[in-house]
Amino acid sequence: MKSLVLERKDELSLRDFPAISKAEETLGPRDVRIKLHTVGICGSDVHYYTHGKIGPFVVNAPMILGHEASGTVIEVGSDVSTLTIGDRVCMEPGIPDPNSRATRLGMYNIDPAVQFWATPPVHGILRPTCVHPEAFTFKLPDDVSFAEAAMVEPLAVGVHAATKARVKPGDVAIVMGAGPIGLVTALSALAAGCARVFVTDLAEKKLDIAASLSPAITPIQIPAQDMVQIVKRETAGWGADIVFEATGSPHAARTVFEPLAPGGCVVMIGGQPDPIQYDAGAAMVREARVENIFRYAHVFPRCVGMLSSGAIDVKPLITRTFDFEDSVRAFEIAASAPPADVKMQIVLPQ
Amino acid sequence: MKSLVLERKDELSLRDFPAISKAEETLGPRDVRIKLHTVGICGSDVHYYTHGKIGPFVVNAPMILGHEASGTVIEVGSDVSTLTIGDRVCMEPGIPDPNSRATRLGMYNIDPAVQFWATPPVHGILRPTCVHPEAFTFKLPDDVSFAEAAMVEPLAVGVHAATKARVKPGDVAIVMGAGPIGLVTALSALAAGCARVFVTDLAEKKLDIAASLSPAITPIQIPAQDMVQIVKRETAGWGADIVFEATGSPHAARTVFEPLAPGGCVVMIGGQPDPIQYDAGAAMVREARVENIFRYAHVFPRCVGMLSSGAIDVKPLITRTFDFEDSVRAFEIAASAPPADVKMQIVLPQ
Amino acid sequence: MKSLVLERKDELSLRDFPAISKAEETLGPRDVRIKLHTVGICGSDVHYYTHGKIGPFVVNAPMILGHEASGTVIEVGSDVSTLTIGDRVCMEPGIPDPNSRATRLGMYNIDPAVQFWATPPVHGILRPTCVHPEAFTFKLPDDVSFAEAAMVEPLAVGVHAATKARVKPGDVAIVMGAGPIGLVTALSALAAGCARVFVTDLAEKKLDIAASLSPAITPIQIPAQDMVQIVKRETAGWGADIVFEATGSPHAARTVFEPLAPGGCVVMIGGQPDPIQYDAGAAMVREARVENIFRYAHVFPRCVGMLSSGAIDVKPLITRTFDFEDSVRAFEIAASAPPADVKMQIVLPQ
Amino acid sequence: MKSLVLERKDELSLRDFPAISKAEETLGPRDVRIKLHTVGICGSDVHYYTHGKIGPFVVNAPMILGHEASGTVIEVGSDVSTLTIGDRVCMEPGIPDPNSRATRLGMYNIDPAVQFWATPPVHGILRPTCVHPEAFTFKLPDDVSFAEAAMVEPLAVGVHAATKARVKPGDVAIVMGAGPIGLVTALSALAAGCARVFVTDLAEKKLDIAASLSPAITPIQIPAQDMVQIVKRETAGWGADIVFEATGSPHAARTVFEPLAPGGCVVMIGGQPDPIQYDAGAAMVREARVENIFRYAHVFPRCVGMLSSGAIDVKPLITRTFDFEDSVRAFEIAASAPPADVKMQIVLPQ
Repeated sequence: MKSLVLERKDELSLRDFPAISKAEETLGPRDVRIKLHTVGICGSDVHYYTHGKIGPFVVNAPMILGHEASGTVIEVGSDVSTLTIGDRVCMEPGIPDPNSRATRLGMYNIDPAVQFWATPPVHGILRPTCVHPEAFTFKLPDDVSFAEAAMVEPLAVGVHAATKARVKPGDVAIVMGAGPIGLVTALSALAAGCARVFVTDLAEKKLDIAASLSPAITPIQIPAQDMVQIVKRETAGWGADIVFEATGSPHAARTVFEPLAPGGCVVMIGGQPDPIQYDAGAAMVREARVENIFRYAHVFPRCVGMLSSGAIDVKPLITRTFDFEDSVRAFEIAASAPPADVKMQIVLPQ
Repeated sequence: MKSLVLERKDELSLRDFPAISKAEETLGPRDVRIKLHTVGICGSDVHYYTHGKIGPFVVNAPMILGHEASGTVIEVGSDVSTLTIGDRVCMEPGIPDPNSRATRLGMYNIDPAVQFWATPPVHGILRPTCVHPEAFTFKLPDDVSFAEAAMVEPLAVGVHAATKARVKPGDVAIVMGAGPIGLVTALSALAAGCARVFVTDLAEKKLDIAASLSPAITPIQIPAQDMVQIVKRETAGWGADIVFEATGSPHAARTVFEPLAPGGCVVMIGGQPDPIQYDAGAAMVREARVENIFRYAHVFPRCVGMLSSGAIDVKPLITRTFDFEDSVRAFEIAASAPPADVKMQIVLPQ
Repeated sequence: MKSLVLERKDELSLRDFPAISKAEETLGPRDVRIKLHTVGICGSDVHYYTHGKIGPFVVNAPMILGHEASGTVIEVGSDVSTLTIGDRVCMEPGIPDPNSRATRLGMYNIDPAVQFWATPPVHGILRPTCVHPEAFTFKLPDDVSFAEAAMVEPLAVGVHAATKARVKPGDVAIVMGAGPIGLVTALSALAAGCARVFVTDLAEKKLDIAASLSPAITPIQIPAQDMVQIVKRETAGWGADIVFEATGSPHAARTVFEPLAPGGCVVMIGGQPDPIQYDAGAAMVREARVENIFRYAHVFPRCVGMLSSGAIDVKPLITRTFDFEDSVRAFEIAASAPPADVKMQIVLPQ
Repeated sequence: MKSLVLERKDELSLRDFPAISKAEETLGPRDVRIKLHTVGICGSDVHYYTHGKIGPFVVNAPMILGHEASGTVIEVGSDVSTLTIGDRVCMEPGIPDPNSRATRLGMYNIDPAVQFWATPPVHGILRPTCVHPEAFTFKLPDDVSFAEAAMVEPLAVGVHAATKARVKPGDVAIVMGAGPIGLVTALSALAAGCARVFVTDLAEKKLDIAASLSPAITPIQIPAQDMVQIVKRETAGWGADIVFEATGSPHAARTVFEPLAPGGCVVMIGGQPDPIQYDAGAAMVREARVENIFRYAHVFPRCVGMLSSGAIDVKPLITRTFDFEDSVRAFEIAASAPPADVKMQIVLPQ
């Protein structure tokens, strides 16, 4: 099977790759086999390509990339009841141990045993087919395209963040960061009930994209514009009900409490490699609640429903599409180019 | 001051009404005086007109009607800090005892001491001016009209219901009843994050209006159409995450659990004069949560924010407007006509 | 294997029972084999004995009774990591489908596919040994006896109810019903933070037992004593923060809202075979939240922890113990005797 | 009126103090006048004495100390309905603006307008009488002594923290810090449903007191003992469901996530004068929730109820009692002595 293989740091090849384990490719009774259609390029894919590792996860052997995917069911296990051959689907890339304590509690995303696509040593899905559990494979309605469906994975981060925030209708939110995760978080916050979302970033170009997504999004270019002053003025001094930190920058993390309303909520989304600092007094006088997010759980079918109903539109975020044959070049562009692009996708031969 | 006075059951007059108590019309240090602009006609106003009472509240003396209102601040008390003369505003019609235990807990709507406009013996605001506490008077941005602002009161019921339901992004909801409260609840449920809302009613005309509000609203005409079967089919057998009961019909109340998903929530909005029945077993096997709603609390500024941002559009619900001079006729029409109209409003001379 | 078999309605025998399915008795990689030690007699066991069915569950073939159990691990599957031979344990009697939607969400107790001991056609555990998943088998510390451990199953109902109620420290609760479930609910409510619990019943003897469990429990013998009046008086007119309905009586269910405080919570525990009635107006003016309970989830290890720490003492509820040889007689007594006994247990030969 | 006056940093005198404002001592219609009985010495009182300020609050003029108080009602305002002359009471020391947005939402403790006893420029209550709003004055039952009632104020911090943590029955908690606030937090955590509480401190003497309060409290003397290792071992590797940070030490604050269970909650109680650091990655992989606490709200009557029912016993924490005449000496001891004492109290002449 021709696959996009990260041979080692800085070296990609599109080649036959025989080594997917037998266990992975044998269809269990509650598994389905999927022909891949569209796969998005995530910042983590690019990071493995350019750095060879993310935190404790090191690429020590050739690994297939890709984890944002949609496709078509081509075979079903004997006990599968909700899917059938020909169903168009998207897939949740992390498979937990169904018997672990965290999974039983409904928090399968923080089960330490999760096997996650394209996280060493688990292969990704930039390859023709894969086997996946029915339980983490979700049928698409006709009005959700393969391209939109391959956006469900990053969108799920935003929807999970908005769910954890427990948005109340009419809340005012700040999203720090206008990268792909910041943008899906802003869309999710609006879909979840926010009346208004302020998006902050350093880069004007990214803020322009943010502002184009909805009239309810107000861009704030820091540090030229004063985030706290603007938000206080626009909320009659009350502050933002929710602050989503989606930059992963320690500097941004230090500023999450100042614009926050009394009793407000901060959601930490962006990964922080090093210890970060914050003003505990500012958190206390507001009795701030802080929710820390790790990927997502239970939101894939919800995302599909919101794409279908029009509650969320991710199409403006898909800025470039490549054929599978050009996928090495796609990664080169993703790794080198300035972030004029929000999301690049690769389409496999059907 | 010329006011719309319910003299007694079935008798309205537009006449000078001197009797508003001095305490009510003296401006306290934290009060504002408001020139009324637009007042909506609520079903409860009509019910007092046609029946002379609602439950324990009996019209024993002439009473001014009206409680859905917007206007302009014309005088401010000495300690008022958030409003100024000329501000366009809408007003929350219930004033609680700020020192009661329920109010201190943040549940001022269920404080038994609440004084609520046009609920005997408290007068309503179909009159030129009123005095109201700053704390329950909310400034309008330029892009929210007086007509929209007078819709905030009924909208608040829907937004409060959606808040209590704790909608999660992507939820599927049923709203039972396509009357004015059912419609604002459907709009609120969508704004609060629902991907899709099924609205049920007996009357096709009301369902047509519901369906016209959003492509995410699906009408179900009962009993010809089978609500449970439709919802189960459209949710792959799972059921609705939330059921809003907005009819006040004991028959509808009996059916809230059957279409509900495991772990789902039922929100009881419609008032029920008599004891009602339900299937306790159906509630238990789903571990259903039931929230019972009484008016609203804390949602007026949220509603204003959502009207301003476009998250909710109530303009299609305002189907007819009358001059204050024609307000007796407006009530006659509201009392007699079939419910082709959703919301009638009265505009006072400025 | 000698087992206590319900041959049919009204007929029990202690006899060799070969028919447990092979699948059930083959040790899977994540299963353990357990030698049973103590088994409590539940009202449902007795009901199957005396009526041959509970709701839709009908005893159509001989079935082994018993589901409140403790024992000792005598064999472990190849992938078992948390238990070892010789561990003293108690067992959760319901096994869900780990891949169902409800289970993945953490609500495995309301997964329709649950297999529950001694619920036809699933056999119970009044037999020498059983095979059970590691995930639903919980190790006992030294200071929790087999007798206490066999009380974890009924206690779990009360702890789950108190968890769902979201008791706040210092809450005042009412528990309707002083049967075994009412008593464990009262103990759970106190352990969960209630300052005070009123327990209501018709039977003075049961109330005496309730009152003896804690000075924070106040018995109310209805109808001679006026529950609403007493609770209002003792709470300065505010009412009870939580009402637990543990009788299963439709009459009691009708009265749950009257003594409830504004913003309070009603927890429905007792099964109701028929539709029940309630005063919707009383629920609304309080904005009551109602939680409907079905068995329990995630609470077994919590119960073990509370028995070990002394937060809950169930020993006073164990009123009589029988040898396995006398188990038919034990059921005859349980079925015929007046409820002077709270919990009878059967000890198997070791 | 003879009062304990902090003249300036390091200078206390017991002397006539005429300067309490007229507004403060005039009885409003919803106020009561109280003869003080017992007043506890808080660390903040001592800090004002030894440092002349706490953060932005500076003692610029002579100020009466004391805010942990009980007493007897000696006069009631014309609209007071829940209290009568002779009632024994305790008092919540912070009075918010009843019309502020935070107060209306039920979060009166974080209303910036709160007037709090013995926080400059507001006087405390180490004086014979005071005037206080009925709404923040709570009647004592006969079985709660004046000494216990004067403990309600510090206890309220712990109960508020446990309430915000949303303890589930059977949770395992860590309380960092065995000072007075750590001890009331440990007691509150147990009363709120924790099966077991680990208390950490550097000082063995303080840990001995902690351990003496309940067999469910396990002391951990850091750094000699390894908190993370002990808690993991005692929870089968899962970790603590809740970590209460009650030291105010930046070092402790850095360690709150490591012993935390997946999905667990950290409650920040101890004030931190400077920005603090934490491991964001450790917070994320657990999806930790963090609650930041500021004083308390709504818990005084709950505390009184728990003292009355025996759910919490604070008597062992009252280690020394002084006559009002000796109150300067009491403060000298409190300021100089090693913390063998937990709580010192002063009794006024009756």
